[in-house]
Amino acid sequence: MSDMEQTIRELCQKASMASRALANASGEKRNELISEIANGLEAASGKLAAANQKDLQAAEQNGLSAAMIDRLALNEQRITKMIQGARDVVDLTDPVGEVTREWELYNGIEMKKVRVPIGVIGIIYESRPNVTVDAGVLCLKTGNVPVLRGGKEAFESNCALIEVMQQAAVKVGLPAEVISFIPTTDREAIPAMCRMDQYIDLMIPRGGHGLIQTVVEHARMPVIKHFHGVCHVYVHADADLEMARNVVVNSKCQRPGVCNALETLLVDQKIAHQFLPEMIAALKERGVEVRGDAAASEAAGETLPEPEGWDVEYLDLILGLRVVEGMADAIKHMEQYGSHHTETIITKNKEIADEFLARVDSAAVFWNASTRFSDGGQFGFGAEIGISTDKIHARGPMGLEELTIYKYVGRGNGQTRI
Amino acid sequence: MSDMEQTIRELCQKASMASRALANASGEKRNELISEIANGLEAASGKLAAANQKDLQAAEQNGLSAAMIDRLALNEQRITKMIQGARDVVDLTDPVGEVTREWELYNGIEMKKVRVPIGVIGIIYESRPNVTVDAGVLCLKTGNVPVLRGGKEAFESNCALIEVMQQAAVKVGLPAEVISFIPTTDREAIPAMCRMDQYIDLMIPRGGHGLIQTVVEHARMPVIKHFHGVCHVYVHADADLEMARNVVVNSKCQRPGVCNALETLLVDQKIAHQFLPEMIAALKERGVEVRGDAAASEAAGETLPEPEGWDVEYLDLILGLRVVEGMADAIKHMEQYGSHHTETIITKNKEIADEFLARVDSAAVFWNASTRFSDGGQFGFGAEIGISTDKIHARGPMGLEELTIYKYVGRGNGQTRI
Repeated sequence: MSDMEQTIRELCQKASMASRALANASGEKRNELISEIANGLEAASGKLAAANQKDLQAAEQNGLSAAMIDRLALNEQRITKMIQGARDVVDLTDPVGEVTREWELYNGIEMKKVRVPIGVIGIIYESRPNVTVDAGVLCLKTGNVPVLRGGKEAFESNCALIEVMQQAAVKVGLPAEVISFIPTTDREAIPAMCRMDQYIDLMIPRGGHGLIQTVVEHARMPVIKHFHGVCHVYVHADADLEMARNVVVNSKCQRPGVCNALETLLVDQKIAHQFLPEMIAALKERGVEVRGDAAASEAAGETLPEPEGWDVEYLDLILGLRVVEGMADAIKHMEQYGSHHTETIITKNKEIADEFLARVDSAAVFWNASTRFSDGGQFGFGAEIGISTDKIHARGPMGLEELTIYKYVGRGNGQTRI
Repeated sequence: MSDMEQTIRELCQKASMASRALANASGEKRNELISEIANGLEAASGKLAAANQKDLQAAEQNGLSAAMIDRLALNEQRITKMIQGARDVVDLTDPVGEVTREWELYNGIEMKKVRVPIGVIGIIYESRPNVTVDAGVLCLKTGNVPVLRGGKEAFESNCALIEVMQQAAVKVGLPAEVISFIPTTDREAIPAMCRMDQYIDLMIPRGGHGLIQTVVEHARMPVIKHFHGVCHVYVHADADLEMARNVVVNSKCQRPGVCNALETLLVDQKIAHQFLPEMIAALKERGVEVRGDAAASEAAGETLPEPEGWDVEYLDLILGLRVVEGMADAIKHMEQYGSHHTETIITKNKEIADEFLARVDSAAVFWNASTRFSDGGQFGFGAEIGISTDKIHARGPMGLEELTIYKYVGRGNGQTRI
């Protein structure tokens, strides 16, 4: 075992021990911790800015793109937002301890199914340092110990944030290890974390293809991936075409760089000639490049550039366009190329809509609404750790409840099994 | 890619395609399939017995133990039980389509959270051939396509059972591939299955250490382990000692070979001298060998053999015994050596019991009741695919609901995000 792996093992072991202390702490104590973190961040804003400055300088020296550098920056506004985010979490209902089912066995044993923390959650993410606080606080709220591994670009910022959070833990009488951070930028730290199934109960990787593949390949513990969204809007033959245009523009343009943004527009061949010219004009007006195959070009009345592939997540002002024969063809396309994240149908026909909503196997399916609503905040969850692209435990937007599991508690008076 | 891996890939790909057909089939159709399987098994009982005979002969030639051979045998009684089991599943409430939450977003979008099948479930199990039908039918009931991999000892029996099940599928108008069986006894088939994350949504390994480790190491898809149970009873100082003896004897002896059977008895030092002699006599009477350390021997008033280790799952009439200083010490022991499966406290003190039930981090925790109640049948789930020892998605007894996931369905009238 390398020195680095030994360091990670010791850190995870301490996290596991601390997780029992945190699970046994009251909801009030966990809220006290989060408030103290918010206060600590406020007090340390100068220190945070200085640490962030080091990351920004390194980023410039390493020639990172302006967009990447922007994502890294912890300016005053973002720090304020992060602090406010933490304070908002204090006010959310605590799911831990909730009794979700209560019943009596045939022999009089009184059973309860009770929400409990999962334990230790490993979170691996990329450049934005605010995730360190946002995700960390959601884990703490639900009694879980986060073991965080941030991107190397934000290393100094993350270390400064973690220091504040650990100091807050000690201040409220909890072990510092209720929050941990992998203290190395070595890429081998990820496979090493993945071998710590004895201590880490769940791994949540949030990021691009390379990160997700590394975790999937090496992880011995359960993983809930927060992976890509190749989301579709299908404009059915009976669609309200103005509504379709609005929903398509919103799904694509309202925030193109996120996983619930639209990537591929599927248009029914019956209305393609009528619908597309105005649709494409509206998209172009907002700077969107529309890419399509020969049939799409023919219906659009102009030669469109070829798409890179129907399974590409552009995360940019680029939209794939395909003309389909009908709903079955649209669903076939989604099954073949999509990522089962979020899909919308636009139609006035309720029967067709119901069939679409039943048959499409995605985390979120909408009738006459933007794909951008597939979001924990929009769903009213209060907070979101991310959007799961898996089909186990949590699917789609993942809030506080999804950060818990349950146990069965039975109270008897000496019952034995016959 | 080897020929075997190619075969497995094609089989999983077909399973994945069939899973959409099955998910779109109605609950009535899935019940029709299960009834047809029951009828088919009835009609094929001669063929099944002949196939099983081949397995039994091979087992004898290979010198398998009498216990192993007994587990392999598909006698008339067991076939009848298997058929009745399938018919019972028809009558269970179908969880698929159940709306578990319904709410309206701030903008009028009507949301529903709906239970849906997971998709394709890989199940890897060991010698008992009845699992092929029992687990297969539970998957089909919940709209999931099972890809089964049974033990090599039961290969001929399993092939015969699968043939009946596939014929039933075709008879009711579904693809034969709604049930699959890995058609090789090659050990390399398990790692190969584990690489099929493109097609298999969930893997459930049920078995011993070697099998579980192989799956955990290789699986790229989510895994819900059905692993071992190192279960404890803690007899507190304020226990009703007669109740304690009854519960201990029941937990250990009612069926010693299963995961919810007792493996380690923890006795509070305050009552150890008073409690143990009679307790040990009662266990000996039922053929149980009690093993303990020096402190246990001292309290028992006799020299006990040493335990193999406190983390051993004996699955036999052997019980580990330890004297502990109190509840904190008992919980510490469970955390260090247990498997977080099922633990019981025996006490008359409600406050102590509540603390134990809250603090012990196991799938099922009982107060004054046998560990043997940690079971889907006993919990009233109607059927059980097994007992999960994981903390994600399903924990403890896993019934039909735990074989589903959900999707979010939103109905709007053109809403876009601001």
